[in-house]
Amino acid sequence: MAQGTFSAGVDIGGTKISAVVVNSAGEIVGRAKKKTKAALGFAEVMNRTAECLAQAAEEAGTAVAELNVVGVGAPGPLLPDGTVVNAPNMGWTRVPLSKSLRALFGCPVYSENDCNAGTFGEYKLGAGIGARTLVGLFMGTGLGGGIIIDGKIITGVNYMGAELGHITVQRGGRSCGCGKRGCLEAYASKTGMGFRFRHAILAEKRPSILHELSGKNLDNVSSSVLKQAWLAHDPVAVETLTEAAEYLGEGIANFITLLAPDVVVVGGGVFQELGRQLMPIVKRAAKDACFPAASFRHTKILAAKLGDDAVALGALAYARERQAAEV
Amino acid sequence: MAQGTFSAGVDIGGTKISAVVVNSAGEIVGRAKKKTKAALGFAEVMNRTAECLAQAAEEAGTAVAELNVVGVGAPGPLLPDGTVVNAPNMGWTRVPLSKSLRALFGCPVYSENDCNAGTFGEYKLGAGIGARTLVGLFMGTGLGGGIIIDGKIITGVNYMGAELGHITVQRGGRSCGCGKRGCLEAYASKTGMGFRFRHAILAEKRPSILHELSGKNLDNVSSSVLKQAWLAHDPVAVETLTEAAEYLGEGIANFITLLAPDVVVVGGGVFQELGRQLMPIVKRAAKDACFPAASFRHTKILAAKLGDDAVALGALAYARERQAAEV
Repeated sequence: MAQGTFSAGVDIGGTKISAVVVNSAGEIVGRAKKKTKAALGFAEVMNRTAECLAQAAEEAGTAVAELNVVGVGAPGPLLPDGTVVNAPNMGWTRVPLSKSLRALFGCPVYSENDCNAGTFGEYKLGAGIGARTLVGLFMGTGLGGGIIIDGKIITGVNYMGAELGHITVQRGGRSCGCGKRGCLEAYASKTGMGFRFRHAILAEKRPSILHELSGKNLDNVSSSVLKQAWLAHDPVAVETLTEAAEYLGEGIANFITLLAPDVVVVGGGVFQELGRQLMPIVKRAAKDACFPAASFRHTKILAAKLGDDAVALGALAYARERQAAEV
Repeated sequence: MAQGTFSAGVDIGGTKISAVVVNSAGEIVGRAKKKTKAALGFAEVMNRTAECLAQAAEEAGTAVAELNVVGVGAPGPLLPDGTVVNAPNMGWTRVPLSKSLRALFGCPVYSENDCNAGTFGEYKLGAGIGARTLVGLFMGTGLGGGIIIDGKIITGVNYMGAELGHITVQRGGRSCGCGKRGCLEAYASKTGMGFRFRHAILAEKRPSILHELSGKNLDNVSSSVLKQAWLAHDPVAVETLTEAAEYLGEGIANFITLLAPDVVVVGGGVFQELGRQLMPIVKRAAKDACFPAASFRHTKILAAKLGDDAVALGALAYARERQAAEV
């Protein structure tokens, strides 16, 4: 098979699939998005992924089967053969992701956990270029992350590691969606923030423009709504976001204390909207809590650069390395 | 210089220095101990270290200058050239440890942080043999630890990483000796336990045989006294040790969540005395708190095997690798 000119990255998320096609110069020359519709089941999500990628390939003036390699980022721990061990929000248990997509695409496919891929993307192409130890954190609905040491994605022996959002930072604290208590994610994520502002607004009856801005649907407050409320100095929004940023900083301090990375990259939906506002709070909290204190000055805490493309581009970079290693 | 038959490991601690001399079969053939007397200053501690090693070498029927290589474990972050960056309990700031000892010993010397060395010892010779990712934890006066991934000691980019006792597990919680609050060490160490049982005995006026067993010196309760009190079902001792073990388990859960190690080795003074009693509590707490829950079953939590020799033997194993890499 001739070496293709184009390759692609795909990000399969809980709500949407997005695909980018990249030319040999590394430029994005095709894009597409599609709703995931996870409820339709694994096979249908695979079909929708193939349709999404086909659309991006068409925009790039090529076809999926002509792609040199495709990297896929998806939720859940992934085995090196591209099996997703489990992904509760997709309803997947031991699904053969890479194998299924290889059959549909007709080209080489490698898959990695989405947060690991996002971190790898920032390492290869974004804010983490050149880092020897890189910690990536993505604050959105949840709090995901990844760890790269000497160019290698740290997954642990069972590929289940690097669940940075689920370290306990407050023993016996706020309930987390994972079933535990006091996880970092229970404070430093949109889900965690929701607990706080809903309690303030609904239980404590405090006034907040979040109520109106969200169309009275406090279960689904977007990052841009949070930003509007912050900029309007809404006290509930400000204290909620401040708490989340402080917890994130404390979490980052833990990662510095443990791994002494040269770079921590912070991204995700909340930070794309509010990075400029929250970063000083995050840095101060991280500085106050890391040990030894002197170690803080060796770690740069940087805003992610790849935005929504981090997972797809990182998955592609990962796929290229896997492919190169096999030749 | 001819290759010596013997080599040695030295553990320079806050209260004592201990040295072991090992023959070519790996058997310990000489031992010595000496008080550190850190207050006398760095140069004097170096002299005392040389005297201690000379005594161990004599017992082995050799002399220090004949040793093939010496590995030294010492507190504080250490640079690869053997400079201790800082070690507050010794009063050291940027002291040239390896260089000074090389001059005194007249043979090759390599140094590593004591907890990293202890973990490396368990990895090379103890409970962690064959682990791909190993986390070591040593509960004594404080809580130290180390991380080995694929045979490499993880120190971070500034050699200050792997401070496992100082991750925050209870934001705003109990004061730690490091100046922060809510560190794992503030609960899962003799120092942390001291806060709890002193409060129970002195402030809450609860009866406890710890008072008597410690000669009414509750600031200095040994691990063997804690064991006696536990075996006597002393309520204050039992609840204090149980809390420490639960926190240790929760800390281990964080390390599993982050690094998914195949083995966690637990040692140190408290565990040498009370490992059999505390290990079930530690495991249960770790199992309850790690994420994803399934990842727990891939991690073995094991008692350390090398006891008091872990640091010296680990430092020697490390020194051998450094020496081999330089040839």
